[in-house]
Formats: sequence, structure tokens, C-alpha cells
Amino acid sequence: MSFLISFEGCEGTGKTTQVTELVRRLNQLNHDVFRIREPGSTKLGDYLRMWLKDETREALSPESEVFLFAAARAALVRDVIIPLLARPSSVVIVDRYIDSTIAYQGYGRGIGLEEIKMVNKISTQGTEPDLTILLDAPVRNGLRRVGSGTQGEIPVRHDKKGTRRFEEEPLEFHERVRSGYLSIAKDEPERIVQVDATGSIGEIADTIWGIVQSKLNLDGKE
Amino acid sequence: MSFLISFEGCEGTGKTTQVTELVRRLNQLNHDVFRIREPGSTKLGDYLRMWLKDETREALSPESEVFLFAAARAALVRDVIIPLLARPSSVVIVDRYIDSTIAYQGYGRGIGLEEIKMVNKISTQGTEPDLTILLDAPVRNGLRRVGSGTQGEIPVRHDKKGTRRFEEEPLEFHERVRSGYLSIAKDEPERIVQVDATGSIGEIADTIWGIVQSKLNLDGKE
Repeated sequence: MSFLISFEGCEGTGKTTQVTELVRRLNQLNHDVFRIREPGSTKLGDYLRMWLKDETREALSPESEVFLFAAARAALVRDVIIPLLARPSSVVIVDRYIDSTIAYQGYGRGIGLEEIKMVNKISTQGTEPDLTILLDAPVRNGLRRVGSGTQGEIPVRHDKKGTRRFEEEPLEFHERVRSGYLSIAKDEPERIVQVDATGSIGEIADTIWGIVQSKLNLDGKE
Repeated sequence: MSFLISFEGCEGTGKTTQVTELVRRLNQLNHDVFRIREPGSTKLGDYLRMWLKDETREALSPESEVFLFAAARAALVRDVIIPLLARPSSVVIVDRYIDSTIAYQGYGRGIGLEEIKMVNKISTQGTEPDLTILLDAPVRNGLRRVGSGTQGEIPVRHDKKGTRRFEEEPLEFHERVRSGYLSIAKDEPERIVQVDATGSIGEIADTIWGIVQSKLNLDGKE
């Protein structure tokens, strides 16, 4: 049996570090582990990522943003994730997935949640994670870690014409994203496990390892 | 008051020619006429069009295709169409719009119609055409006009991995698109007027001109 595990959380909550930790531990147990980063990992993803990262591009509307991520994800799911999950026993780990769309474009940018869920359903062909690790920490902690331009109590000027890179959004945006995540986690406790991301890297990695082990039923096999 | 008019129809039904004809006649009446072609007319549209036209790119999944068109349309609606419609009396003409998504990606590629309509709702922010001209002709006529690679009764080999450029799709694909269009037109007779596209360019242009005049209530003003 194969598993799809997604990592979610606000900027600077340590997702990349924790994915690395988890991959290392899974590899020691001789699992086939595949680590995937959105929106890249396909040529279309790379092409769209170039646009999203281009500092000189025109402002992007929230609607275009949601569709660009969805187009990249659709390619990723069809060309990479579904084929990997079809193998006998692989663990596929994605750094951001459907809950990012709900939290960032839904709660953050204000696109309707019904609409967002429909977009997710198309882009993933219904391929949901077996387990989602939500790394949660106060927004200020995370933004400090990524060295965001968000200025304390004073939100930086918001360009009404379109969206900006997430790190540059005001504090309120990130608070909406965080509370969005917490709300999704409450709605789907079977799939999403919320992890306190304020501890040390090692502590958090141990917590995640326990959750993953019990999900993969590794406990008795070691 | 401003108007949004969309032109729809299968390959080779003469949309571009008829848009040109309509623009010429509207200009003579001193209307502010704006002609818009999807998916271009914005930088994002151009960027995505480059990908869609790239012959060397990887196969595109139907889901990615629907989202790329939607992303380009969202930019077009927000940055171009909505501002133009906010002017006192402009006529905005789009060559393909929401019904293309339903006909091509829904009926043609097989994505669920509910899902497609939700995507359209997001990408247009609910901005529907006041009038849609559906140019209808037997599929073979149109494909002959555009010099398609579709080979008569024998569909060209279909790449199972992903979508191809529309002109290269087999006859069955275009038949599904056409019957999709006819079905949408039946559902929304107030908005969509079906026009027989098998006549001469002048005859068809006259028919369309009559429909547009009565919609714009120009009859009494000339």
C-alpha cells in the first residue's frame, strides 16, 4: 500500500526542514520515498513558477493565482503523484497541497471556499492525502524566520490591483491563512494532524515521526 | 450602457471573419468598440499562449488545460473587460469565452460540467455576455477550412497521455464540441443566438448585424 502525506502551514513554520527530517527517517527504514515540491516537479510547474517568481510581472489577480497553482498541481498529480502512488509501497510527500489553496487563496485572498474546493477536486482528480501534517506557530514567529518585509503592527501598503508574493503580504493576511488552516484541521481531524511548530527541530521531528509511524502502521514492524 | 458580446463556435466556422465584419459596422455607427482575443490581450495571457502553442512541450492534461485558459481569462476579465464595461457606452467583443470552456473542456475533454461552470464563475467574477453569437456548421466543413490534420473517417492517433491542439483532435472530438454548443444554446436561449454559418460571409454578417442591432436597440436610432 502507498501513502500520500502532505505538509502544510504558514510561512516559516519549518515545513521544508521537517520534510527533510521525515524523508531521512523513512529512508532508513528502506521505504521508497518521493519528495515533491509544488508548483515545480513538472515542466509546466517550472514554467508557471517562473511567472509567479518574476518580480517585474504585472499584478496577478487572486483568481489567476488560484488557477495557475491549480494548473501546476493538475500536471503534478497526473504525471507524478498518481503514477508514484500506483507503485506497491511508496510514500509520497508533498510540501503544500490542497489545504494551501483553501488557506491562502480561500481564507487569505477571499475566494469562495466552495469554489476553491471544486478547483481542488478537479486539479487532484480527487486524490486526497492519507495524512496531512499541519505545522502551526504564531504568525510573527514564522515571518521573522523567513525575513519577511511585513512590518510589525503596520501592514505594508497593499496593492489593490493584484496579489503580491505571500511573504510580502501584511500580518492580517497571514493571520487569516493561519486561522483558515486551524479551521480546516478542525473540520477534518481524521486526515489532518496539527503539530506545534514552536519547539526545537528535533522535538517536532520526533512528534511527526510518531504520527507517521502510527499512520503507516510501522510500530509493530520495526 | 455597455455590452459584452461573445462569439462562439467550432474550428473554422468563421468567427474571426465575422468579428471583423461586426467591428467594422459598429465603428461606422461611432460606437466605442473593443475587440478581444483569448487567451492573449494580457501579459499573463501571452505567457500562457506561448506554452499552449509550444509544439515541443510535454502533453497537457485536460485539467491543466482548463486551468491555464481560466487563469488567462481571469486576468483578461479583471484587467481588461471589467474596466472597459465600466465606461459609459462601449461594446466589448470577445472571440471565445465561457461557452468555449464548457464545449471544449467539458463536452470535448470530458471534465464535469458542474466543475467547469464553477471555474467559469471564478474566472469571470460572474461577468456573463449580454449576447452570444454561436456560429454553427457541420464539423467537416469547418475542419476543411482550417486545413486540419483530422483525417476523414479515420481519427489520427490519440495520445492518451494528454491533450493535443484542438485542430489535431479526431472528428469525434469536434462532434462532441459541436453538440455541446448546441445543448448550451438550447439551455440559454435568452443569451445565445445560434447562427447558420454555412452561408456566404455577407449573408452571415447581415444576420448577425440584425441580431446585434435589436440587442443594442439601435433600430430606432439610425
